[in-house]
Amino acid sequence: MTAPRTTDLGFARLDPDRVHRTGTPEVVYAAGKTPAQTVACLAALLDAGAGPDGRAFAWATRVDEATAAAVRERWPDARIDPEARCALVGEPPAPVGRVLVLTAGTSDGPVAAEACATLRACGVGARRVQDVGVAGVHRVLAVAPDIAAADAVVVVAGMDGALPGVVAGLTDRPVVAVPTSVGYGAAFEGLAALLTMLTACAPGVLVVNIDNGFGAGVAAARIARTVARGRATAER
Amino acid sequence: MTAPRTTDLGFARLDPDRVHRTGTPEVVYAAGKTPAQTVACLAALLDAGAGPDGRAFAWATRVDEATAAAVRERWPDARIDPEARCALVGEPPAPVGRVLVLTAGTSDGPVAAEACATLRACGVGARRVQDVGVAGVHRVLAVAPDIAAADAVVVVAGMDGALPGVVAGLTDRPVVAVPTSVGYGAAFEGLAALLTMLTACAPGVLVVNIDNGFGAGVAAARIARTVARGRATAER
Amino acid sequence: MTAPRTTDLGFARLDPDRVHRTGTPEVVYAAGKTPAQTVACLAALLDAGAGPDGRAFAWATRVDEATAAAVRERWPDARIDPEARCALVGEPPAPVGRVLVLTAGTSDGPVAAEACATLRACGVGARRVQDVGVAGVHRVLAVAPDIAAADAVVVVAGMDGALPGVVAGLTDRPVVAVPTSVGYGAAFEGLAALLTMLTACAPGVLVVNIDNGFGAGVAAARIARTVARGRATAER
Amino acid sequence: MTAPRTTDLGFARLDPDRVHRTGTPEVVYAAGKTPAQTVACLAALLDAGAGPDGRAFAWATRVDEATAAAVRERWPDARIDPEARCALVGEPPAPVGRVLVLTAGTSDGPVAAEACATLRACGVGARRVQDVGVAGVHRVLAVAPDIAAADAVVVVAGMDGALPGVVAGLTDRPVVAVPTSVGYGAAFEGLAALLTMLTACAPGVLVVNIDNGFGAGVAAARIARTVARGRATAER
Amino acid sequence: MTAPRTTDLGFARLDPDRVHRTGTPEVVYAAGKTPAQTVACLAALLDAGAGPDGRAFAWATRVDEATAAAVRERWPDARIDPEARCALVGEPPAPVGRVLVLTAGTSDGPVAAEACATLRACGVGARRVQDVGVAGVHRVLAVAPDIAAADAVVVVAGMDGALPGVVAGLTDRPVVAVPTSVGYGAAFEGLAALLTMLTACAPGVLVVNIDNGFGAGVAAARIARTVARGRATAER
Amino acid sequence: MTAPRTTDLGFARLDPDRVHRTGTPEVVYAAGKTPAQTVACLAALLDAGAGPDGRAFAWATRVDEATAAAVRERWPDARIDPEARCALVGEPPAPVGRVLVLTAGTSDGPVAAEACATLRACGVGARRVQDVGVAGVHRVLAVAPDIAAADAVVVVAGMDGALPGVVAGLTDRPVVAVPTSVGYGAAFEGLAALLTMLTACAPGVLVVNIDNGFGAGVAAARIARTVARGRATAER
Amino acid sequence: MTAPRTTDLGFARLDPDRVHRTGTPEVVYAAGKTPAQTVACLAALLDAGAGPDGRAFAWATRVDEATAAAVRERWPDARIDPEARCALVGEPPAPVGRVLVLTAGTSDGPVAAEACATLRACGVGARRVQDVGVAGVHRVLAVAPDIAAADAVVVVAGMDGALPGVVAGLTDRPVVAVPTSVGYGAAFEGLAALLTMLTACAPGVLVVNIDNGFGAGVAAARIARTVARGRATAER
Amino acid sequence: MTAPRTTDLGFARLDPDRVHRTGTPEVVYAAGKTPAQTVACLAALLDAGAGPDGRAFAWATRVDEATAAAVRERWPDARIDPEARCALVGEPPAPVGRVLVLTAGTSDGPVAAEACATLRACGVGARRVQDVGVAGVHRVLAVAPDIAAADAVVVVAGMDGALPGVVAGLTDRPVVAVPTSVGYGAAFEGLAALLTMLTACAPGVLVVNIDNGFGAGVAAARIARTVARGRATAER
Repeated sequence: MTAPRTTDLGFARLDPDRVHRTGTPEVVYAAGKTPAQTVACLAALLDAGAGPDGRAFAWATRVDEATAAAVRERWPDARIDPEARCALVGEPPAPVGRVLVLTAGTSDGPVAAEACATLRACGVGARRVQDVGVAGVHRVLAVAPDIAAADAVVVVAGMDGALPGVVAGLTDRPVVAVPTSVGYGAAFEGLAALLTMLTACAPGVLVVNIDNGFGAGVAAARIARTVARGRATAER
Repeated sequence: MTAPRTTDLGFARLDPDRVHRTGTPEVVYAAGKTPAQTVACLAALLDAGAGPDGRAFAWATRVDEATAAAVRERWPDARIDPEARCALVGEPPAPVGRVLVLTAGTSDGPVAAEACATLRACGVGARRVQDVGVAGVHRVLAVAPDIAAADAVVVVAGMDGALPGVVAGLTDRPVVAVPTSVGYGAAFEGLAALLTMLTACAPGVLVVNIDNGFGAGVAAARIARTVARGRATAER
Repeated sequence: MTAPRTTDLGFARLDPDRVHRTGTPEVVYAAGKTPAQTVACLAALLDAGAGPDGRAFAWATRVDEATAAAVRERWPDARIDPEARCALVGEPPAPVGRVLVLTAGTSDGPVAAEACATLRACGVGARRVQDVGVAGVHRVLAVAPDIAAADAVVVVAGMDGALPGVVAGLTDRPVVAVPTSVGYGAAFEGLAALLTMLTACAPGVLVVNIDNGFGAGVAAARIARTVARGRATAER
Repeated sequence: MTAPRTTDLGFARLDPDRVHRTGTPEVVYAAGKTPAQTVACLAALLDAGAGPDGRAFAWATRVDEATAAAVRERWPDARIDPEARCALVGEPPAPVGRVLVLTAGTSDGPVAAEACATLRACGVGARRVQDVGVAGVHRVLAVAPDIAAADAVVVVAGMDGALPGVVAGLTDRPVVAVPTSVGYGAAFEGLAALLTMLTACAPGVLVVNIDNGFGAGVAAARIARTVARGRATAER
Repeated sequence: MTAPRTTDLGFARLDPDRVHRTGTPEVVYAAGKTPAQTVACLAALLDAGAGPDGRAFAWATRVDEATAAAVRERWPDARIDPEARCALVGEPPAPVGRVLVLTAGTSDGPVAAEACATLRACGVGARRVQDVGVAGVHRVLAVAPDIAAADAVVVVAGMDGALPGVVAGLTDRPVVAVPTSVGYGAAFEGLAALLTMLTACAPGVLVVNIDNGFGAGVAAARIARTVARGRATAER
Repeated sequence: MTAPRTTDLGFARLDPDRVHRTGTPEVVYAAGKTPAQTVACLAALLDAGAGPDGRAFAWATRVDEATAAAVRERWPDARIDPEARCALVGEPPAPVGRVLVLTAGTSDGPVAAEACATLRACGVGARRVQDVGVAGVHRVLAVAPDIAAADAVVVVAGMDGALPGVVAGLTDRPVVAVPTSVGYGAAFEGLAALLTMLTACAPGVLVVNIDNGFGAGVAAARIARTVARGRATAER
Repeated sequence: MTAPRTTDLGFARLDPDRVHRTGTPEVVYAAGKTPAQTVACLAALLDAGAGPDGRAFAWATRVDEATAAAVRERWPDARIDPEARCALVGEPPAPVGRVLVLTAGTSDGPVAAEACATLRACGVGARRVQDVGVAGVHRVLAVAPDIAAADAVVVVAGMDGALPGVVAGLTDRPVVAVPTSVGYGAAFEGLAALLTMLTACAPGVLVVNIDNGFGAGVAAARIARTVARGRATAER
Repeated sequence: MTAPRTTDLGFARLDPDRVHRTGTPEVVYAAGKTPAQTVACLAALLDAGAGPDGRAFAWATRVDEATAAAVRERWPDARIDPEARCALVGEPPAPVGRVLVLTAGTSDGPVAAEACATLRACGVGARRVQDVGVAGVHRVLAVAPDIAAADAVVVVAGMDGALPGVVAGLTDRPVVAVPTSVGYGAAFEGLAALLTMLTACAPGVLVVNIDNGFGAGVAAARIARTVARGRATAER
């Protein structure tokens, strides 16, 4: 394998071949950067063809309003999702696979939105169903058909984080659990939900960092792409 | 109110009037005591008439095998429950009320047993149903009629501790949750279950200390006795 | 039992039959919602007859000033308690039972207020006595008659959280303890009080999440309603 | 769907239809049970046909020597893996899919063994490569072809837990990370590795509980079966 | 001031002039030493005249049975307190001052015993009253006269650690609080009691390490000696 | 003893006899109160003669600028210390005793100032020496004469909190250690300093809550008053 | 050795001879000081000749914009690094030695800048290479020649903090690791990175406090100066 | 650079070229291995010439008695240090450089011994001085000449861990701090000492894991070898 390229902008060292190695296009984490730095990174990734199959595609997460404005000014047709705080520049590939994203409560929405935006950037199909927490367990049972149709399920939950375990007890699909910092007191900024998911009675729950919709999306995309490749391989 | 009595044994200062103040007969916590000390405490409480209505009744928790043997030698008809590690000497009053004790898994059994023994010592009726954890949520739904018939429900669960929240979403009865130290790793000796129960999405879950079947029994007995008093008052 | 209804507003999935299952009318947690979203939820719950016995009643907690204004504009006769940050729309049922709410210090007031508002929303009678902390233990002893007259006692305390244990040593009533985030340093945002209450020497203390006046109110209401049902059943 | 069956042994309430719902045959967690109890559970599961497609298959994890002996006495041809502490009774289905299990160090072996045994019980193919930690990063690079051939990679690591992040930066396959309690001091019984994996710079790392080879195996099996189903569906 | 002496035994570097600087005779912490090493340290301190006023006095804490036997063999008239796990060799000065040592429960006894032994080694008078925990607050009130007669009060408590705060609300004397590791679950090996004492509502509670009867004794001795010196100065 | 008085302001229940029981005049903790509430509390305490010997004296801590202005408007000659954030209204008794307050660094100043203001309110003499941290251990050695002249030493330190242990190794006086939240990262808001002080190698260090200059002042005043009483008693 | 000097400014007690004892010129930590106080400290250090070899040099860290302006107004040619938040007044000695400062990501830049500024203040040569995190391990391998040319390597990393361990596995030079608070959720403000570095599989990683570029710079300067002294000694 | 060798023993994958990359000969961590496995690893490393300059040298840490016996049987002239729990087989190179290893107390001895054994295995000179804790600060001052003569100082301390900070305030040499698990209660198995060292007021303290004498030795060896190389380079 030839050595991966590195794009050195001085303040950042981009990894445009990441999509070849890992399937996920290099992403710009905008949180620690100025709007101008984020724009510069996106431009360099577009130039380098850092999207899938070398296409001109770049994206950023944790985009605040100032950065969103700077991105929109530079690329008027950029797709910016304010709930997800993500910006996509250029066209991601047509989606393969089916990932279902569930939330336990309304407040978990932004994290679920980040997961969905990430799935789109990774070229994977996403569908979101909101507010099916275990306090009314019939709401979970009602989405069983949606779960059965998915390649993987992302379950986003704060407070007690009990939803992923209940879902995992109802399905044979991979379950990716995202604890959120929703809640107060003994929720300890998401720690309670994190521990709940790690110790779920139903085995096979896979956990990512607190509020990490991005990581959940990347992981679910890895699963869905592997499934899709299986389908494609078999078809040939 | 006259000042409560104190029975001073030198190594311990017993509170024989506790049952008058709090409804719970003074208990001997055997964990930090020698078998002889536990026996001496029980004997003093029997002498003092520290049971309900001044009856000769005394009891101990966290009783190991050596202490159990010493108690049985002194009072051959003592009721000793090895699973609960409790010893009851003398006759508690006829039970009033109905408390249901549920466990999420088999390993939570000893804590549930301690709760049941405590309820009996407090003169409250107890019934136990085992192993209805949320990994198979149909097992919870199956016990709904038992829950509906209870004055209060004690729910004992380790690992993710998700069961009490699901139960509280299905009933209007008081729910007393007991986290247990069952589990490993991120269960952190019961901390995960404790945090889950404190942050349960379903409101109204009441929590006691990890592995504290005793405290859960006392609390449920307070509820059941208050309910029973309501019934009795009304009858008059 | 027929399947519970679900009211899907897109951003939220309401559970209007919660009051039938759990005795507590579905509540709108306003903290993560816009004023318009909270109003929409309240309206939908009123439409659905989500109050006790199908009456048009709805309520919200963690209501900030903007949301309070929006609620008042829509329903001018809504009862809004700024200390409790609660809004009640429509008429809750006439109160049954008697719950006493104690605080250890003045700063614990808002949490106690939320508990009282919750009790009213649940149709349970509440009375509040302020500032009886253990630094002057005579203040606790002075409220003994109030405690004796209650079906359940809610005790709200920050800092060392020692008050519930002392109360539980003086009464046979159910004691619901609410740790608050009042204090600094080693109070660790309520953790010290939480641990104190969980490990109280006096058995039977029942604990809810830090600053969770809502949960304490719901739990105390479960107890008081069960007691009241006992009275009523007996009367018939 | 018909209601799932429940097999009530008094001390345990088995869930023989779990394999139909979740793809994983109901497992006996032997840690909290006597050898006789574990044998009784296995026998009941065999009777119930709790294996895939109703076949007579049952298994247990956390099997100590006494329990292993009891199992072997009852079923002389049981497959018992002492390193993994697992016992399999009856014949699991022929394996589908390919999961690669990597360890950072020799001491992580038992956890990796449990993952492999679980994969076999779930009917999924497993291969294990040992001791490729990042202190000599060339050892990781050397297994790149093995990684590329897998449907999913399970990476087991203690101490700093850095291996999964490095692997995830090299591949597009799903990566399941298992922190282990290997290490001392600031490793805090696996906490350091757990946090490292949750915050890995390389996105898409999926984490299970500390020392939870079982959960990692179940999760990887969910992925591999979904991939295999994709292949099969396409073939048809 | 002349430089303090140092006695170098190779494996230990004793500080025989500590009593001159700090009022507390250098102590041998036996926990990390062999019986022979402890005996050698004690002998060297006796030789150096490391007791008050240069007298031949030496002592050790955390003395197990083997070390106690070795000490007794070498110095048959050594005073060994098995509950306190302390050994005193030679004669400490006649006690000055009055320190009261209270315990919340019987299990706190060994820590209180260590405090008392330390006070004796430091030449300060000690009196111990056992088992006056807040679950029966009348027991605390009953010892008020003892508290009023003391120069300082040491209060030893595990579980919720609430006793020192109640005592500090009743007296104007210095209160030294010792959390103990008595309790389980959320007592977290004494952490709950420690935090309670640090955040006590009654101001002026002074806290030492968990189970640190030794440190409490040294601190109370510093106070009592300063008080005694005040008395003596005034008399002159 | 006659029952202590209670002054009920509705929002607060004052304890004007606290000075008789504990030597410390009841204090108004202004942090959780409006300026008007703090003024009302101070006025009520002045009316009640809540100062030593029944004198009209009252004080408040954690006073912000708005409250300070309100106090000054009501009582123009109130003594307000902005660094200490304390307000004293009326005349405290002439100081007895000598307490030395040391700080490790400049940033620890406000906590030391609160301790000094508290000592003045309690009628005890205070002297403050700043910035003698252990990074230059000669600075500590230079203040040895000041330490020797004190009845008690309060040592305020953030970051590693090592100063109290070094001081305790140099003196026989009581040492009250106050950890501060000065520092960042692994200082964990004062936790590092707190643990250091609790585990100091030099025995006899007494610890109060993080940033709790008030508590340190109250505790040192208890010591100094007891010493002074010793002197006075002896003189008679 | 003559006693070190102390410069007492009332609010601060400077240690101008620190450079003689420790090689690091006394530094002004501006975070807890007013701009005027920082300027006064710098002026006093310049007067005292607190730089190496008695030269007029002084510096400050954690300098905000207001302080930077005050410094620049007083000393127009002061070197102020806004990224590092450091101000250097006067001329540090010509640099000796070679320290390489690596960062894992762009957001770690300010901490690395503080380390570089500190090295310059200590008279040691520094070179910085940015953004070589392990998510693309080829970026680390590419800087191997730079590492080999250094006397010591400072590695700055947030999130999982895995970079120092990988670097330490590639070189025989001293590795100083600085965890940063970059990241969210289970990064716990730098705790995850801190634990990772402390438990790195590759031995010999040396760790400083979270975000402590200053401490890393001082430590690396100690190493580089010792190396340089070795070179110089040998040359003579 | 040619690819590093890997020696695959099945259960372990040795890295015999580690000494070339990192200066530290590959070490066998015996804690998780059988005696036979440790012997096999040592033999393979001797065969591979895994010592410095390709010499036949191998070593192991955390060697218990059984493993020590197995090593001694195979290589009768192996050097086994029972205090350090290390075994060295073959001849390490003649030591270069000078590292001073200090301990705060006697109980820290085994960790210091491991550091010394590691230094010898790495070919670096080590000297150990015991029991110079800060409770008697004159003991630290007495070793100043030893510190001044060293290339680096390793400081081993448990309990409050204050010694490294005091040492760093007295010297310009690199200071490597090792927290130990010595102590109880709030020492939290070495956590208190760890935090103290990370937040030391004296800058430049470098910290390794709790009880990690091995890592401290490796790090100090990196420093001493770099210094020695400086001397050697200059000499040429």
